[in-house]
Amino acid sequence: MPRWKINHGKTQEKRQRRVRLRMAVNKPPAGSSPGTLVLAEGAPMPRIRAVRYTPEGFEERAIGDARELASFCAPEGILWVDVQGLGDRATLEWIGKHFALHPLLLADVVHVPQRPKCEAYEGATFLVVRRLRWRGDPNDPVDERQVSLVLGARWVLSFQEGPDDVFEPVRARLESAAGLMRKQREDYLLYALVDAIVDDYLPVLDKLANNLEALEERVVEQPSRAILRELAALRHDLIAIRRDVWPQREALHALLRGDVAGISEPVKVYLRDVYDHCVQVAEMVEVYREIGSGLLNIYLTSIANRTNEVMKVLTVVATIFMPPTVLVGAWGMNVPLPRLPGGDAAQFWWVSGGCIAMAVGMLAFFRRKRWI
Amino acid sequence: MPRWKINHGKTQEKRQRRVRLRMAVNKPPAGSSPGTLVLAEGAPMPRIRAVRYTPEGFEERAIGDARELASFCAPEGILWVDVQGLGDRATLEWIGKHFALHPLLLADVVHVPQRPKCEAYEGATFLVVRRLRWRGDPNDPVDERQVSLVLGARWVLSFQEGPDDVFEPVRARLESAAGLMRKQREDYLLYALVDAIVDDYLPVLDKLANNLEALEERVVEQPSRAILRELAALRHDLIAIRRDVWPQREALHALLRGDVAGISEPVKVYLRDVYDHCVQVAEMVEVYREIGSGLLNIYLTSIANRTNEVMKVLTVVATIFMPPTVLVGAWGMNVPLPRLPGGDAAQFWWVSGGCIAMAVGMLAFFRRKRWI
Amino acid sequence: MPRWKINHGKTQEKRQRRVRLRMAVNKPPAGSSPGTLVLAEGAPMPRIRAVRYTPEGFEERAIGDARELASFCAPEGILWVDVQGLGDRATLEWIGKHFALHPLLLADVVHVPQRPKCEAYEGATFLVVRRLRWRGDPNDPVDERQVSLVLGARWVLSFQEGPDDVFEPVRARLESAAGLMRKQREDYLLYALVDAIVDDYLPVLDKLANNLEALEERVVEQPSRAILRELAALRHDLIAIRRDVWPQREALHALLRGDVAGISEPVKVYLRDVYDHCVQVAEMVEVYREIGSGLLNIYLTSIANRTNEVMKVLTVVATIFMPPTVLVGAWGMNVPLPRLPGGDAAQFWWVSGGCIAMAVGMLAFFRRKRWI
Amino acid sequence: MPRWKINHGKTQEKRQRRVRLRMAVNKPPAGSSPGTLVLAEGAPMPRIRAVRYTPEGFEERAIGDARELASFCAPEGILWVDVQGLGDRATLEWIGKHFALHPLLLADVVHVPQRPKCEAYEGATFLVVRRLRWRGDPNDPVDERQVSLVLGARWVLSFQEGPDDVFEPVRARLESAAGLMRKQREDYLLYALVDAIVDDYLPVLDKLANNLEALEERVVEQPSRAILRELAALRHDLIAIRRDVWPQREALHALLRGDVAGISEPVKVYLRDVYDHCVQVAEMVEVYREIGSGLLNIYLTSIANRTNEVMKVLTVVATIFMPPTVLVGAWGMNVPLPRLPGGDAAQFWWVSGGCIAMAVGMLAFFRRKRWI
Amino acid sequence: MPRWKINHGKTQEKRQRRVRLRMAVNKPPAGSSPGTLVLAEGAPMPRIRAVRYTPEGFEERAIGDARELASFCAPEGILWVDVQGLGDRATLEWIGKHFALHPLLLADVVHVPQRPKCEAYEGATFLVVRRLRWRGDPNDPVDERQVSLVLGARWVLSFQEGPDDVFEPVRARLESAAGLMRKQREDYLLYALVDAIVDDYLPVLDKLANNLEALEERVVEQPSRAILRELAALRHDLIAIRRDVWPQREALHALLRGDVAGISEPVKVYLRDVYDHCVQVAEMVEVYREIGSGLLNIYLTSIANRTNEVMKVLTVVATIFMPPTVLVGAWGMNVPLPRLPGGDAAQFWWVSGGCIAMAVGMLAFFRRKRWI
Repeated sequence: MPRWKINHGKTQEKRQRRVRLRMAVNKPPAGSSPGTLVLAEGAPMPRIRAVRYTPEGFEERAIGDARELASFCAPEGILWVDVQGLGDRATLEWIGKHFALHPLLLADVVHVPQRPKCEAYEGATFLVVRRLRWRGDPNDPVDERQVSLVLGARWVLSFQEGPDDVFEPVRARLESAAGLMRKQREDYLLYALVDAIVDDYLPVLDKLANNLEALEERVVEQPSRAILRELAALRHDLIAIRRDVWPQREALHALLRGDVAGISEPVKVYLRDVYDHCVQVAEMVEVYREIGSGLLNIYLTSIANRTNEVMKVLTVVATIFMPPTVLVGAWGMNVPLPRLPGGDAAQFWWVSGGCIAMAVGMLAFFRRKRWI
Repeated sequence: MPRWKINHGKTQEKRQRRVRLRMAVNKPPAGSSPGTLVLAEGAPMPRIRAVRYTPEGFEERAIGDARELASFCAPEGILWVDVQGLGDRATLEWIGKHFALHPLLLADVVHVPQRPKCEAYEGATFLVVRRLRWRGDPNDPVDERQVSLVLGARWVLSFQEGPDDVFEPVRARLESAAGLMRKQREDYLLYALVDAIVDDYLPVLDKLANNLEALEERVVEQPSRAILRELAALRHDLIAIRRDVWPQREALHALLRGDVAGISEPVKVYLRDVYDHCVQVAEMVEVYREIGSGLLNIYLTSIANRTNEVMKVLTVVATIFMPPTVLVGAWGMNVPLPRLPGGDAAQFWWVSGGCIAMAVGMLAFFRRKRWI
Repeated sequence: MPRWKINHGKTQEKRQRRVRLRMAVNKPPAGSSPGTLVLAEGAPMPRIRAVRYTPEGFEERAIGDARELASFCAPEGILWVDVQGLGDRATLEWIGKHFALHPLLLADVVHVPQRPKCEAYEGATFLVVRRLRWRGDPNDPVDERQVSLVLGARWVLSFQEGPDDVFEPVRARLESAAGLMRKQREDYLLYALVDAIVDDYLPVLDKLANNLEALEERVVEQPSRAILRELAALRHDLIAIRRDVWPQREALHALLRGDVAGISEPVKVYLRDVYDHCVQVAEMVEVYREIGSGLLNIYLTSIANRTNEVMKVLTVVATIFMPPTVLVGAWGMNVPLPRLPGGDAAQFWWVSGGCIAMAVGMLAFFRRKRWI
Repeated sequence: MPRWKINHGKTQEKRQRRVRLRMAVNKPPAGSSPGTLVLAEGAPMPRIRAVRYTPEGFEERAIGDARELASFCAPEGILWVDVQGLGDRATLEWIGKHFALHPLLLADVVHVPQRPKCEAYEGATFLVVRRLRWRGDPNDPVDERQVSLVLGARWVLSFQEGPDDVFEPVRARLESAAGLMRKQREDYLLYALVDAIVDDYLPVLDKLANNLEALEERVVEQPSRAILRELAALRHDLIAIRRDVWPQREALHALLRGDVAGISEPVKVYLRDVYDHCVQVAEMVEVYREIGSGLLNIYLTSIANRTNEVMKVLTVVATIFMPPTVLVGAWGMNVPLPRLPGGDAAQFWWVSGGCIAMAVGMLAFFRRKRWI
Repeated sequence: MPRWKINHGKTQEKRQRRVRLRMAVNKPPAGSSPGTLVLAEGAPMPRIRAVRYTPEGFEERAIGDARELASFCAPEGILWVDVQGLGDRATLEWIGKHFALHPLLLADVVHVPQRPKCEAYEGATFLVVRRLRWRGDPNDPVDERQVSLVLGARWVLSFQEGPDDVFEPVRARLESAAGLMRKQREDYLLYALVDAIVDDYLPVLDKLANNLEALEERVVEQPSRAILRELAALRHDLIAIRRDVWPQREALHALLRGDVAGISEPVKVYLRDVYDHCVQVAEMVEVYREIGSGLLNIYLTSIANRTNEVMKVLTVVATIFMPPTVLVGAWGMNVPLPRLPGGDAAQFWWVSGGCIAMAVGMLAFFRRKRWI
């Protein structure tokens, strides 16, 4: 029975890692100074890409040492520093100092994952956004990453957990003179970055919906034990995504409501659009979660259904063969048997015929009761 | 067993399409400029019907090329442009430019489905409304379409996804001089359009209620595996409709509350009536959803009930026939048997009688326990 | 098996009618002018009873033709017109015109059922109240009717769906000089009418509670298939009543809050009392609904319990009789059998004794495991 | 089977009485004048204990006739009149008149139970509080009583349903000169009375928690049918208590918020403490309710578990004994049997050995599948 | 069967203690004076550690008698008095008097557990925080303790239930000159204390998540009766923690909102960080609770699955062996048997072959139905 022998060890390991990661694991020990940075184990070294643009010009530089940034800054134009990878304390602290970031802000950047939020600090607006990515691994299909955005006066910082860049299209739009993006201010850049992240949710949800439907089909058609595990995993995913999406929606709403400084009215119209997508995503996740949590009940009912069918077969078989057993047993008794009509040879057939008549009668009875 | 062989492939395909469609599938790739229009695959070519009316006059024109609109516009009277079909970028962009629509507004018109909403743009109020239609196809009975309405100064735009026009009665009322509708302003026209859409919900809900009741009847009377699939489909429908109706209610409330400009007080009284219907619909859907989600439990209980009955039969049969098997087996042993009273022929009948007595005794015992 | 043969056709018909009625079935077709009146099929002809009272006097008149009302109106005193039955368009329109009712108001009076609500119109306050009545029919025990109340300057209109008058006690109190009611203004009359309706809820809830308890008793004691149907019906009723009571509570709260004109402070104290009763009713319904929805689970558990008991009996029976079957079968083999101690006659009793010993041993084993 | 014969008639009677009592049963008929008093059947005759105190003095008098109160009132000091028992209309009306109570207030005092509430009347603040008492009767363990409190200018009225006095400790504290209570004003007395009632909740909840735990233990260890009934009863209790506690919390909050007059700031600090206890109680009840409603699922699962175990035994028994039945039957056939190695006597043992080998093999197979 | 014999007595005792402790058990009897202190049974004697610091200096003293505090106080610097253990009335009352604490505040300190809250008293802000600790005992893994914090003008009091100190790291940071903590005011100290407590939640949640995952793995793989008990216990824990975390979140929010005095704006930025962690914890607990409550359903489904598998085996076995029983019984009849082709020896093999053919046929049938 190979089903019993599948090695689920790896699955379990991965899932554990995932759920445990849901709260920042690289937090400083309880009681330490606020703003103490503890790097996540295995976090990649930062790769910095700085961009400075004015309506007329665009300059991009890949920066090896954070200190090069100082020379890149210039009074005119808007600066966007994108940090990919959070694995070097010195770099992060230098950036924090250079842009006068609050120690708690920097700590939230480093101690991933934080819940999505929008916070106002003196001179900077801090936005934590959650990114979803479809990994394709059936045991842990969705990957979540934190992207931290800081909006200052004429500059925007973005911090991504890993090297898989989500902002490339934005950079391309900035570079090409065609779009009007370079004429906009830094708040529009912030919008463009958030929009790029939220737009990425759609294919993930689409694939989740596909999984959900395939699972529902299988639950109704051929419930097996393997499905139970998949159902539980899907439910975890949906619960987790939902936990991310709702605060994200709130964070965007805070931006819209004007809880924080630095967002101009025309850009709010654009942010409202992102917010709207986020609400739509949140509602979809809610719908999926509702459908997903109903699947377990459908599974249970489907199993009950099959048990009922098996029971009917057992009952039919037992009822058909038990009476003949008694009948042939009776004629096997070592006592003088009653003589049935006909010759010696007819005796056997009379009894056998009785058995078959009993079986047919029982079958007819069951059919009338609609059991078979 | 034909039940196992039904080809459910088509059902699945349709349902997948439906659920996946719930979010705009024709969105531009992540990171592109806001307002980039991506036409939905297979969207029909637009058919434009423009209407201009004053209290005294009414003029309607079917417009082939959007540019004809320019000549149709006139300073006096109220203009209503109804676009049926969203399959031509040039037309949509021309209209967007002519009426100075915000690029995001136009994107929301094209990237269907959006969630129902009411948004204020400069110089225009944008309203997304969801339309429900009963298609009759048992596998996917309800069809949802987006209708986008834009209210400007003395003009109203309406965009419908397909060619099945829902606004014909409104046009007829405008044309006939009898109604007082031509004396009203453009906000009243907006109300009339929304009202026509919301009024259409009633027959759909009515049919859903019928389905629900028929299903409940069958669940209690003769639970079968086919019902499980239908139950799941109905649940999907109700979840989906509910997801549409609640934001629609909110959107109408935003109109009423005065979040947007352009709605006069007397028209608000009428809109309150539409809002009221929408609330009623939302409550009905909630009621149906609650009843529908209880059906699965009733099904499970009904199955458990039947399994219990089958078990009883099996138990009764086993208990009646197992003791005689032992009895006749005992008299079949190849050892000297105890001699029962009476002659040789009586031996057989004594044992047979014993068997029947045992069976009757067991039956009496079960009847007293109310098992049969 | 008479249980299978009960004709449930009628039940189904009634229930369908009931659920379908929950939304106004006599609405005008989508897209027609607002305020178009469509009479409900089978609505009884209106019977009008007009009352005019001053602190000193009381006059009542049964009015055949609505136009008689014009002559009945007088500058002094408070006028109460009670219309029972909504089956004549001319009458309703005449009243609407005479009291200058908004067309939407009149439409809501006619297109029953509307959800309970409180709306302010120019010169009139409109209140839709839901009435509950216990009909006693076990398949559809609760009957719901709409009562529409309109409060104007020195007049009150009340519209009842049918001829079963709920306002008789109020009329009696007005007529008798004893009460102080005639000294009060029209808002107090409105209160008195609402109070009469809400007070009527108590016996209905009381009877529902009785049903609920009887059902719970039966579910635990003797779950049968008929109960499943009754449970579903009761759940429908509770869901429906709850849907009516919550908006009614809201509507009364709107009156209290001062959303509408015409209610004086001293009368608000009285209305607060009615509101309070309504809240109490809403909470009771919530309690019943919660208990009711738990009943299905109790039923399922009760069935599982019984199946478990039946299974135990089957297992016990099988375990007691199967080993002896093998034993007697072994001694029935046509091979030389081992000779047991004692004479020829003893052989039979040795084996039979072995069978009984086996059965007793099994019984003892089961008793120790507490299975029987 | 004594379980089937227990007479549950009494239990049912009591529970019915309890649930039905949840709404005022002694209300006047629908449509009667507001403020009409209808005494509850069997309400005990009132026993009045009046207390008057100043910082220096304390006087208590048991009052037979309400009219004696007139002579007991005095300009100085604070008056507290405690009425135990609501069975005499004249007394209640006299008190209502003497203290100028609004007729609706007096009606709410008499028509028990009302939901807990806090209402402002002219010149008086009315507070309905619910009292819980542990009766110990296993079928209906918790007893609920209404206590109505009225706070006026320098006087407090308290109305208790029955003669079991909850305010004795307060009276004792007032009498003893030690406490500082006599220096406080009447709002502090109100607080002391409410505090005495709310403090009484703790032991009731404590006992409910004990019951809950004992039940949970039994559900997991030995689910029996009797538990089902107890579970349902406990669930009723928790639903009912919860229904009482939440509005009580609200009522106290209304006092704190300053919705009503007469509560000074320093006393609000004390009331906040009572409110806090009430919130804690409400949260506990919520916790119990959640645990309680999970018990039914645990019960069902526990039963399913046992059925599974019984099924395994049956399957094992059947599988062990069915193959030997065929084997010995085959050697019982009246045809020339194949000769097994060894002498005549060995034939029997070869077959028997075959049977045992089959049984052992099956057992080994089952053990490997972990079924036994 | 050892599973039946495990002594669960101890488990039960512990769990009872735990749930019962959820409300203050050492409250004064109902009706006593507010502020009466009743020490919890077995509360340890207080151990007082006082700290006074200025930006320049730091002084710590272990105080035996509370009266020594008087001499320790000094006009300059900030005083922090940490009381570990609440087992001495005199000490607590002395402290209450010395710092002019409201009697109700002191009562809430002593009567543990209170729900987490934030209350403003004259001259002092009172904060009740709940501490979680992982004990490792599988039957009662999480330990909850109350920490009460009082913030005054230039002083902070902290009361811990037991001697296991959670504030040591804070004291160390204060002592070391490195941190900037000594330059901050007393509100920052309050923040540091709350932060130390909330940071401690993380490992507890992490371990709960591990338990949850291990349980889920076992529920799917090998559901046993022992799991049912563990599931119930885990559910209790999650319900209890959730009950603690939500009000704690609220209490911190009240601090942030400025409901109480004494918190400066820069410290609010830090408190917002703690609040944020608390929200994250609350959301995690919600996620765990949701997953946990789904486990019972997965368990039930898993059991149903196994029952279904066992049933199939039984049905297959019965169906394979019952027909041969009849066949060999028929050839065992004491009547002239039909002569099958071949010699005497072939008779036996014909019948045996028939039996095997029947069994194989049945097996093929079942395989086609996918039952095995």
